[in-house]
Amino acid sequence: MSANAPTEPTSQASAGKAPRTARGERTLRKILDAAIDEFGERGFSEGSIVGITQRARVALGTFYTYFDSKEAVFKALVRDMSARVREHVAPVLMAATDTLEGEEKALESYLQFARAHKQVYRIIDEAEFADPQGFEEHYRTTAARIAARLEAGKAKGEVFATNSKIASDVEAWAIMGMNVFLGLRFAVWGKENPKDVAGIANRMIRQGLQA
Amino acid sequence: MSANAPTEPTSQASAGKAPRTARGERTLRKILDAAIDEFGERGFSEGSIVGITQRARVALGTFYTYFDSKEAVFKALVRDMSARVREHVAPVLMAATDTLEGEEKALESYLQFARAHKQVYRIIDEAEFADPQGFEEHYRTTAARIAARLEAGKAKGEVFATNSKIASDVEAWAIMGMNVFLGLRFAVWGKENPKDVAGIANRMIRQGLQA
Repeated sequence: MSANAPTEPTSQASAGKAPRTARGERTLRKILDAAIDEFGERGFSEGSIVGITQRARVALGTFYTYFDSKEAVFKALVRDMSARVREHVAPVLMAATDTLEGEEKALESYLQFARAHKQVYRIIDEAEFADPQGFEEHYRTTAARIAARLEAGKAKGEVFATNSKIASDVEAWAIMGMNVFLGLRFAVWGKENPKDVAGIANRMIRQGLQA
Repeated sequence: MSANAPTEPTSQASAGKAPRTARGERTLRKILDAAIDEFGERGFSEGSIVGITQRARVALGTFYTYFDSKEAVFKALVRDMSARVREHVAPVLMAATDTLEGEEKALESYLQFARAHKQVYRIIDEAEFADPQGFEEHYRTTAARIAARLEAGKAKGEVFATNSKIASDVEAWAIMGMNVFLGLRFAVWGKENPKDVAGIANRMIRQGLQA
C-alpha cells in the first residue's frame, strides 16, 4: 500500500459490530479517543473498559455495541494509531517534489505528531506484549511504505541504488528506526524544536541516500 | 563514560548482597543467565523467581542471598544486558582506525549480538513498563557514548560538524534507532546476514556523516 494512496480504513470495531450510522461512527471514535487516554496513562493491564467508558461518557453497553473485550479495543487502538500516523504524514509526502524531500518532510511531520500524541509510544510499545501481531504489522507496513517510496526514487534516479535485493528494506528500517528514536528522545521526553531535530537528521538521510 | 574505557561493572546484586567470593560471582551470573531465559520467554509478569531458580538449578534461598525480589532481579538484568551489549561492541570500537569505521563495525557487531541473544529485545522493551528508569538509562547512556565518539570524530575532522549544539545528540539517537530497528527486523525476526545488512546501513551512515 502506498502512503500516497488515499486510505479507506475498514472499521476498527469488532467483527459484526461496525457502526452503521454517522452517529455510531462518532461514538466509536469517542471510545477510541478515550482508550488512547486510558491505555496511554494506565497501560494495558491497569487500563479497564469501565475507565474507557467513563472517559468517553458512554454507557458500558455502548462499549459492547462496538467491541467484544478490552483486548479487542486495544488491538483496534494499535491499528488506529498506526493509521493516524500514516494519515498525519500523507499530505506532506504528497506535496513533496522528490523522494528525499518527502522523507525529510515526513520526519518533521512525524516528530510533530509524536509531540502532540505522546501516548502513541506507550501504546505501540506495549503492543509488543499485549498485541504482538498488531505491533509487528504496524512496523512491517510502515517500513514497506518507506521502502516502496525509496524504490520509486531509485527508479527515478533520485536515490542511490545498488543491486542488493534487501537494500531498500534495510534503508527503510533504518529510517523508521531513526524516526522512532528521535521521536522518543526529542518529542516525547524532550522539548527540542522538531524542525531543528529533523534538520540535523535529514542532512544525514539526504547525504546518506542521494544518488 | 567512553565505550573505549575498560568498564568495571558494579555488582548487579541487591544492596548489601554483592557476592564476596569468585564462587558467589559465578552463582550470581548463573541466576542472571537463568533470568534472561525466564523473562525472555515468559515476560516480566508471567516470569517467576521459582522459574529462575529452577532454570539456574539453585535453591530459592540462594536467590535471596543475592536479590531482594523479582523486580530487583529484573532491574539487574536490564543493567546487565545493557553492559553486555556495550562489552560485546567495545573491542571492535577499540580496533577501529577512525570514527566512522568504528560506528560501522559497531553496527555489525551489535547485529551479531542481537542474533545470538534475541531475548535482549523482549527484556529491554519490557523494561519500558517494568523498569522505566532502567529503560531510559540504557538508551540515554548508549546514546551518550555514541555522541561522545562523534564529538571526538568531529574534533579530529573525521565527521561532518555543524555549530548546532544538539547535532551529535540527534545523530547519536538516529544511529542508535537504526541499530535497534535493524536488529529487530534482520537479526531477531529475520535471518539475513548481519554483514550484508550492516554494509547497506553503513554506506548510509558513512555518506551521511562524513566530513
